[in-house]
Amino acid sequence: MENRDYIKSLIYQQNISQDISSCYLYFEALIRSNLLKLKSILPEQFEIFYAIKANPHKEIISFLNHFGCGADVASYGELETVIREGTDPGKISFAGPGKTDEDIKAAVRNNICSLSVESPEEIEKINDIAGQLRKKQNVAIRVNPQKNFSGYGMKMGGYPSPFGIDEDKCPYALKKISESEHLEFTGFHAHVGSQILDADAIGSVFRYLLEYALAVQNQYHFEIQYINFGGGFGIPYYEKQKPLDLKRLQDILKELTDTDEFLKNFPKTRFIIEPGRFLVADAGVYLSKILYIKESRGKKFIVIEGGMHHNLSAFGHLGQVIRRNYHIDVLRFDGQVKETTSDTFDIVGSLCTPLDKLAEHIELTDDVRIGDYICVYNSGAYGYTASPLFFLNHPLPKVNVIKWKKDQDVI
Amino acid sequence: MENRDYIKSLIYQQNISQDISSCYLYFEALIRSNLLKLKSILPEQFEIFYAIKANPHKEIISFLNHFGCGADVASYGELETVIREGTDPGKISFAGPGKTDEDIKAAVRNNICSLSVESPEEIEKINDIAGQLRKKQNVAIRVNPQKNFSGYGMKMGGYPSPFGIDEDKCPYALKKISESEHLEFTGFHAHVGSQILDADAIGSVFRYLLEYALAVQNQYHFEIQYINFGGGFGIPYYEKQKPLDLKRLQDILKELTDTDEFLKNFPKTRFIIEPGRFLVADAGVYLSKILYIKESRGKKFIVIEGGMHHNLSAFGHLGQVIRRNYHIDVLRFDGQVKETTSDTFDIVGSLCTPLDKLAEHIELTDDVRIGDYICVYNSGAYGYTASPLFFLNHPLPKVNVIKWKKDQDVI
Repeated sequence: MENRDYIKSLIYQQNISQDISSCYLYFEALIRSNLLKLKSILPEQFEIFYAIKANPHKEIISFLNHFGCGADVASYGELETVIREGTDPGKISFAGPGKTDEDIKAAVRNNICSLSVESPEEIEKINDIAGQLRKKQNVAIRVNPQKNFSGYGMKMGGYPSPFGIDEDKCPYALKKISESEHLEFTGFHAHVGSQILDADAIGSVFRYLLEYALAVQNQYHFEIQYINFGGGFGIPYYEKQKPLDLKRLQDILKELTDTDEFLKNFPKTRFIIEPGRFLVADAGVYLSKILYIKESRGKKFIVIEGGMHHNLSAFGHLGQVIRRNYHIDVLRFDGQVKETTSDTFDIVGSLCTPLDKLAEHIELTDDVRIGDYICVYNSGAYGYTASPLFFLNHPLPKVNVIKWKKDQDVI
Repeated sequence: MENRDYIKSLIYQQNISQDISSCYLYFEALIRSNLLKLKSILPEQFEIFYAIKANPHKEIISFLNHFGCGADVASYGELETVIREGTDPGKISFAGPGKTDEDIKAAVRNNICSLSVESPEEIEKINDIAGQLRKKQNVAIRVNPQKNFSGYGMKMGGYPSPFGIDEDKCPYALKKISESEHLEFTGFHAHVGSQILDADAIGSVFRYLLEYALAVQNQYHFEIQYINFGGGFGIPYYEKQKPLDLKRLQDILKELTDTDEFLKNFPKTRFIIEPGRFLVADAGVYLSKILYIKESRGKKFIVIEGGMHHNLSAFGHLGQVIRRNYHIDVLRFDGQVKETTSDTFDIVGSLCTPLDKLAEHIELTDDVRIGDYICVYNSGAYGYTASPLFFLNHPLPKVNVIKWKKDQDVI
């Protein structure tokens, strides 16, 4: 992990009371840093819609708004949240395979930038609802590409999938939309996977979608107003994983967009990306107090106050086929100095289940005492809200957003 | 699934409105039926403490109270719940590897039947807290057996484990307890695994714990007051799994306890079991409305309103190494007749992630329409509270407990 020591120093600057059992800390300075990194490699005309499913904390939404980000939402609950936090409806996208009437109504009522349609039935449903509300709704077709893409942590397209409309059925969907009185076709959306660490894999989706949109534009003689490349930009969670090569991605995007041809083809098109994890994951940590240190048949265990009910992903139960250890440190907030040593532990949560295991055979190079805190890095995305918080009815972790100060600059 | 048709008929007797998107239904009649089945094979002097972690719905706790069950809890939150529902503190056990000061205080204040100690440090902590509260606390030692047990879905003992105290360290723990002014040693507790479908595996734990308790009793010349065999009684979730052979378990228990020797050895001992899943799992169903039926590259998908955020276990993300399909039916509540047909589907939830998959390649023998409901059986345990309910901020499922009527008798 590249900036582990820096994050540790940020945590130590906080006044963490020994009364806190478990908490999440999100650092705006780190979110901003991720955002600036991403902006610096994107072509000028690209817009960022933050996928709030990664972390829907209202202060984070509002902070990213402040820096010009829109929002990608996946339910009317999320839509209401971003509206409440002041997101411009013209910068809100909404996708999801199971949109309800309430979801669609909320989107139409709020005049959001674009609603992704994912089936012919949905086209009818949106048209009906927009008609009832006497509105016209912008829709984009979410394409499930014919082509198979590689390099994705989790795949969502390029194979038989509930997400989007198969590429070969898109002409039919397009016709259906153009015949729908209350719909306005804006363009295309593709989101074919997540947790991508390969710049070329991302590049191949961008290339595919641009070529596809251009072909449709040429065939049907209208201007594509909106191309949404989705998100899925990954971060390195485990040992030996390398971060996404942003320089490489920059070169690919430059090659695709920095041409007279491109400007001629898409003079007024809006280009959207929807990162979630990439912006917030490494900007958040989960801290939990050590309650017990015990030995069983020669194996040493650290038992923390929290557990998988607080941070399901870090405990390996959110899509990981093999549980691997997240990056973890021991922190001490009582002012006492730590000694350097080395010992190997399993770290478990407080739940009565063997599933509640955070780390296996992890080497800790600081001495560890009861009352110290286990710090789990990369907990800013798919942490709090992606966890079964009420399981066994333990106290909820505290959540604290640490404000960015204007003079604070981190890259 | 043995009683599938009967459960279906119980659901159809409910007045399920088409406005309901997703809900859980728990049938008290089925819980009672499971309880009676279990009671009928247990030796007379055995007591049942319901492990509420399986389903902490207050009406279920109160219903089981009514039939004489105690409660097994794992946090002060759970303890407060069962006290509020009227559970006799003399019938409450409390175990867990990560008990906090608040957990222990709540146990001591409420004079619960027995607190399981799981490390020497915990013995000191409980003694200190009981002293501060000027109380004496009953404690049992949770043993991690030296012996390795087989036949368990999930293991929690018989290997290096954070649960309980290694058998070879129990004499030390016993000494420590007897020297602690504010503690009263009551006996032993073992819970070495869960989701057990093998009666002999359960029997071997009972035998082990009885023999162990007897050996300690003989060596130290005092009467063991309390033996808690734990829970872990499983139910068949998947095709080809067979239910626990209760007749076989009855025979094993009879052989162990129906002797003059046994009565002589344990004249006043309380014997506890702590089933959770066994009592409630098949008494609950999860229903979710079908929003879309779509095809992608020749594969048919059913998209439901709910998803893994409502029922994480059924979607294969709570300890299952390989996701397998739960027992599932299509139900129709609009009064229209279903036709018998046969088709194969993948069933997915409404979340924007490929993890949100309920069933793969499942054959449905009823015709399926939008507006029908997918019924997931065996959702009464580790469902609602074990799920990341706030993930993507969709509406919560409704929860409804269907009261047992006195004339209703089911086995």
